[in-house]
Amino acid sequence: MDFLQAYTVRINEGLEGINLPSKPSNLYDPLRYFFTLGGKRVRPILTLLAAEKFIGTDSETDALNAALAVEIFHNFSLVHDDIMDEAPVRRGQQTVHKKWNTNIAILSGDVMLVKAYQYLNSYPAATAKKLIDVFNKTAIEVCEGQQLDMDFEKRSTVGQEEYIEMISLKTSVLLGCALQFGAIVGGADTNAQNALYGYGLNMGVGFQIQDDLLDLYGNPELVGKQVGGDIITNKNTLLMVIAKREANEEQLNTLETLLKETNNVKKIEGVLSLFKILNVEEKCRELMNLFYNKAEVHLDKVELKSDKSGLWSLTELLKSRSY
Amino acid sequence: MDFLQAYTVRINEGLEGINLPSKPSNLYDPLRYFFTLGGKRVRPILTLLAAEKFIGTDSETDALNAALAVEIFHNFSLVHDDIMDEAPVRRGQQTVHKKWNTNIAILSGDVMLVKAYQYLNSYPAATAKKLIDVFNKTAIEVCEGQQLDMDFEKRSTVGQEEYIEMISLKTSVLLGCALQFGAIVGGADTNAQNALYGYGLNMGVGFQIQDDLLDLYGNPELVGKQVGGDIITNKNTLLMVIAKREANEEQLNTLETLLKETNNVKKIEGVLSLFKILNVEEKCRELMNLFYNKAEVHLDKVELKSDKSGLWSLTELLKSRSY
Repeated sequence: MDFLQAYTVRINEGLEGINLPSKPSNLYDPLRYFFTLGGKRVRPILTLLAAEKFIGTDSETDALNAALAVEIFHNFSLVHDDIMDEAPVRRGQQTVHKKWNTNIAILSGDVMLVKAYQYLNSYPAATAKKLIDVFNKTAIEVCEGQQLDMDFEKRSTVGQEEYIEMISLKTSVLLGCALQFGAIVGGADTNAQNALYGYGLNMGVGFQIQDDLLDLYGNPELVGKQVGGDIITNKNTLLMVIAKREANEEQLNTLETLLKETNNVKKIEGVLSLFKILNVEEKCRELMNLFYNKAEVHLDKVELKSDKSGLWSLTELLKSRSY
Repeated sequence: MDFLQAYTVRINEGLEGINLPSKPSNLYDPLRYFFTLGGKRVRPILTLLAAEKFIGTDSETDALNAALAVEIFHNFSLVHDDIMDEAPVRRGQQTVHKKWNTNIAILSGDVMLVKAYQYLNSYPAATAKKLIDVFNKTAIEVCEGQQLDMDFEKRSTVGQEEYIEMISLKTSVLLGCALQFGAIVGGADTNAQNALYGYGLNMGVGFQIQDDLLDLYGNPELVGKQVGGDIITNKNTLLMVIAKREANEEQLNTLETLLKETNNVKKIEGVLSLFKILNVEEKCRELMNLFYNKAEVHLDKVELKSDKSGLWSLTELLKSRSY
């Protein structure tokens, strides 16, 4: 998708152009490091697309600061989440708390969050207030999602509804927020703002479900990581949530035994075979498509000044990935 | 000071009245816990005083949300600082990371920071933009101060200027911000805003220096904690910064030996005796008074709609404490 390339370049240039003091270096070096680690920049691209393609081309430049705020916030949440998840690697490089230490990761994450507000508050007062209202709500929801995710890790069963709520809060609301930002900056009315938000929210849920599916059913050559990684680590994915709900007592016992299996190949094969009996993949795909369809219904509602091709292309790109 | 009591009550009522969801309880229980731990509420009282006594009584009610934002931000910084400092106790109770765990303390701190922005963004757009501009700058400075503090802990010598810069960033800028908030909400002009900010900033530095002094020279019955606690923990206070600067080579060696002394009584006596020879207390008091005087010069510049008695009383209260 060549048209996305230009957006990615602008976001990366924007991130590199952020004026950070040299001192204290232990506070600002992690920001410089993390902002240039790369990443798909999906969220800020959504903001630029919503502003430019949907509302009117004139607003394109203006949307950059809102787009950067979204990406900076996303980076903040990754830095803090990586501490909580004890993740050593992010985007192929050391995480901030590994490269420096936990204290530095906490504090530089805090500064990132404030920086996001600086970019939002760079707009004229009325626009800034609207952006910050949406942002506050979203930021709190993302924290709630992360807390639910941590809570769920300690539980053996999680319901489908609460699982969907968790992924919705943890990741999808920020996609909705990113699109709504573009609409706000582009001067769209409340209906269009809400429709774009709904599109992003539902796309995000679909996308996350797809993530769960791809881990087990994706093309291993394209995924670039071990197939069934979620199974090996006993992660509560939607697949597992559905399986536990659909299983009878005997199948539940089989599953419990499999979760303790130390031979990974045997473990994955066993789980795959049980998932097949329980129609887990199919049920999961149905749910994914339900959210993708909901997303499209929202997008249909938006009246545009420009054509929808940009966002449709992005949608298709996200949906069609087999890795 | 009876007049302060009424302000404290309003702040505490405001904090108790914050509408927090019941779930996820691991995210919101720490906020409920920390908001009701007590505390002197100096910062939000400054906001209310600046708005009410300085600008005009009508604005008093309106200043509550800005005051709450300051206190919530202060609480956020305490929760995260306590993790970094591995502090087990805060306001006589367990710190959040001790009572729950580090992950929960990181995340609930994050939510507090966002909550502060919610209170600021509750104002009309033009006011909110001004408040958030000041707040963003202040929040970043507080993080810089905390980082410098952590950096200094690993160094054997710290210069007087950089020490003053550190305490200024870590604590004083928030006092300036609190007062400027009151001025902004009360509709004061930029000159008055800046003068109040300058008053708070310099008062804060004086107050922090006084803290260092009181630890060693305070009335032990009133301090309510061990005299010389900073000496025992080898903390780089302003007293120590001055002593290391004033000492000749022989005296520096004596000091180095004393820092390793394990008998606390002997250690404190030795350091006190060296400080006396080097006139450390006197030099420290001079510096404190310099900042208190600067603060008063700033306050003199403010043209008021109401009388200054409230803030003067608070100033005198802060300066006169012997504990």
